[in-house]
Amino acid sequence: MMTKFETIQAISVPSYPEGSLFSAERPENRENREITIHGSVHKIRKMSGFSFLILRTPKRLVQCVLDSDKCQVEGFLKEEACIRANALVVEEPRSKTGWELHLKRITVLSEPAEEMPVVINGKGIDASLETLLDYRPLTLRNEKQRAVFKIQEGLCRGFRAFLEKEEFTEIRTPKIVYQGAEGGANIFRLDYFGKDAYLAQSPQFYKQMMVGVYERVFEIGPVFRAEKHDTARHLNEYTSVDFEMGYINGFQDICQMEAAMIKNSLDYLQVHYGAELSLLKVRLPEADSIPSIRFHEAKELVAGRYKRPLCEKNDFEPEEEKLLSEIVKKETGSDFVFVTHYPTAKRPFYAMEDTEHPEVTLSFDLLFRGLEVTTGGQRIHDYGMQLAKMERMGMDPSLFKSYLWIHKAGMPPHGGLGLGLERFTARLLEMDNVRQAAMFPRDIHRVMP
Amino acid sequence: MMTKFETIQAISVPSYPEGSLFSAERPENRENREITIHGSVHKIRKMSGFSFLILRTPKRLVQCVLDSDKCQVEGFLKEEACIRANALVVEEPRSKTGWELHLKRITVLSEPAEEMPVVINGKGIDASLETLLDYRPLTLRNEKQRAVFKIQEGLCRGFRAFLEKEEFTEIRTPKIVYQGAEGGANIFRLDYFGKDAYLAQSPQFYKQMMVGVYERVFEIGPVFRAEKHDTARHLNEYTSVDFEMGYINGFQDICQMEAAMIKNSLDYLQVHYGAELSLLKVRLPEADSIPSIRFHEAKELVAGRYKRPLCEKNDFEPEEEKLLSEIVKKETGSDFVFVTHYPTAKRPFYAMEDTEHPEVTLSFDLLFRGLEVTTGGQRIHDYGMQLAKMERMGMDPSLFKSYLWIHKAGMPPHGGLGLGLERFTARLLEMDNVRQAAMFPRDIHRVMP
Repeated sequence: MMTKFETIQAISVPSYPEGSLFSAERPENRENREITIHGSVHKIRKMSGFSFLILRTPKRLVQCVLDSDKCQVEGFLKEEACIRANALVVEEPRSKTGWELHLKRITVLSEPAEEMPVVINGKGIDASLETLLDYRPLTLRNEKQRAVFKIQEGLCRGFRAFLEKEEFTEIRTPKIVYQGAEGGANIFRLDYFGKDAYLAQSPQFYKQMMVGVYERVFEIGPVFRAEKHDTARHLNEYTSVDFEMGYINGFQDICQMEAAMIKNSLDYLQVHYGAELSLLKVRLPEADSIPSIRFHEAKELVAGRYKRPLCEKNDFEPEEEKLLSEIVKKETGSDFVFVTHYPTAKRPFYAMEDTEHPEVTLSFDLLFRGLEVTTGGQRIHDYGMQLAKMERMGMDPSLFKSYLWIHKAGMPPHGGLGLGLERFTARLLEMDNVRQAAMFPRDIHRVMP
Repeated sequence: MMTKFETIQAISVPSYPEGSLFSAERPENRENREITIHGSVHKIRKMSGFSFLILRTPKRLVQCVLDSDKCQVEGFLKEEACIRANALVVEEPRSKTGWELHLKRITVLSEPAEEMPVVINGKGIDASLETLLDYRPLTLRNEKQRAVFKIQEGLCRGFRAFLEKEEFTEIRTPKIVYQGAEGGANIFRLDYFGKDAYLAQSPQFYKQMMVGVYERVFEIGPVFRAEKHDTARHLNEYTSVDFEMGYINGFQDICQMEAAMIKNSLDYLQVHYGAELSLLKVRLPEADSIPSIRFHEAKELVAGRYKRPLCEKNDFEPEEEKLLSEIVKKETGSDFVFVTHYPTAKRPFYAMEDTEHPEVTLSFDLLFRGLEVTTGGQRIHDYGMQLAKMERMGMDPSLFKSYLWIHKAGMPPHGGLGLGLERFTARLLEMDNVRQAAMFPRDIHRVMP
């Protein structure tokens, strides 16, 4: 006997049913047509004789007119209720879009049980950063808040589109690891079935391994840093946009690739995320070409220009990064600057040194509007060179056995970078605090919500 | 005084230089043209009077002829050396591609320091799974091994392209969490600055929160399960393809969307990953329509057909999933089957129950060639209903405060699913063990490499 199976058809379910407002290419052409729509009741504004009901849909706020004599309402209508509705599209020059909806029939699908603990239906949200983050599942419903993460989505789409075009293979590397790539104390420890394991500080070792497989690879994924810094620039979990490429002629290839990736992504935003850019009044930077300066020259430049003492010789203070960006902006007009040739003392063991000046590495940071958003460079590919450097640094190579296999087995000259997605977003949107650019930020005080 | 900055142009660096073999649309048109190329020496096969040198490039193995009288070699040439070369494109009907390269000049960029501990330049790799995984950074260089993860990349590109077209917003949710979504003991604990935190078992709570923001959301990212099962189907870290959508008419909308997503992705593979599919002799399944059966009917069907006792009433045994898939394949020809209406007792607290039959949920699994690859369903959106269910289950709602805000504040009817990327890949490629479909698998015994 044959069994009776039901059948599910592989046909997508459109967000809005056929003939509805948003399935139309040009809603203005639907003048006086009845459409169906759904969304959250963002705001109800009582007028004399009728109300404005602002409906929140994924892409925009829609102005609706609710005249209780002309509209049948099923259920109890209030702010944040989820509704389905039938409505007429009516021309209305005073509406932002040039049209509004006249509601005919509303079905309330679900009602909120309580008032919102924070007002989300204003232009922005008038609350402290702490409140904004405490109530994140709700505050993200605010029009400006949600636009932030649409732009972040757009940045990633732009990066990804560029990297795919340039023949980078997308990889997925483990986040539970047996060892950190960056070393030091800023690593989260984990109980892994009674043994110690760690959370990946970066996909560094894995992306290098994969250069031996695919030549060019990228990953956009979470990384974890147990840093105790409680600053406006630090997150303990963030999204790293990593790429790594083989057969480079020098680390400048990586810089050039990054500039092209950024330019591509900013162009992508301009084409596809215009509404969000204009809502947040984003000043898109130019990235057609990016100035570059050596680390020690940059240190001297800032010290000289601002009459500051040269304290920490091997690293930037955050204030110096800001000042350098100011100088660059003033002299070249650029919001970006590459700082190259960082001191060997401050770079990890896999960083390639300058043959003629081994005290500096063939590496770089990218600063964007005063903040470091990328670290990158050429890596050591020769086994003998890597082994010698580890021994010079007092490291035990036997702890890096499977990583060193790739050097033993043969690797092309290669290098890459990691770009902090939240930092990049924060600088693009000129936010004071990187937490504002993380959906659910993690810092030393916060793992909730 | 103005500073002198160097300038990095935002122009991408092509993998192969202009005029090289792979920048040409049709390499066969380049007959007798000299080109430049780079890659790893995959194999050297000595013939009488000359050698075949098989060059491994990201996309294919290239047959080259090395005649030491006619080729100038700089450096010591051996297998796994990375080289740059100039060569002539020559027609050769006995080569798979119809052409081969006659090497003119070779520069060895880097040499391996040791012999490979495992032979990777055969068709496949003749080694145990343990060896294959122990030497993963090297074994992935094998042509068939690397094709696996190109196909996995293609699957993700296909999923992503579909979800973007269907107006899903890509989200990035935290992997360090204060609480698990699935409950139970299979959660990794973490020391988070002296407090307890956990690794996310799924983005469940967060994707539901984000339905309140964007209506349709997706995430492709790592999830972590501290399960002690040491089976061919379990990984302790895997990639979950999650989507969640609001304003559904029922859980069938989600099934339909998944079927469409899978069909779209398989079509995408066929168009863009033909070489890998044919190398691995992949039998692509049909997904135009997928049969569906209720859980308790499926249990009875398998028990009746195979004369098996009905033991565990509320869940499938792995063997039952295999047998059900066999029946479905025989009777409908489908490699997939949706099993719906799982018992309430075995689904999490947020699962929506069938109003008329509260002992079952409006949920489903998708089985693919005998293995569960997806779990999904409709979620509870009403605050009162969710609260009552948690209390009935003996849970403390105060522990889920920020999650329950979304129910309090108003949520549309919604649901979604999580698809295990490695499991899906493993079934697509008919692998015995899901570990073969993870680049660097993590299981109870393995966190290396």
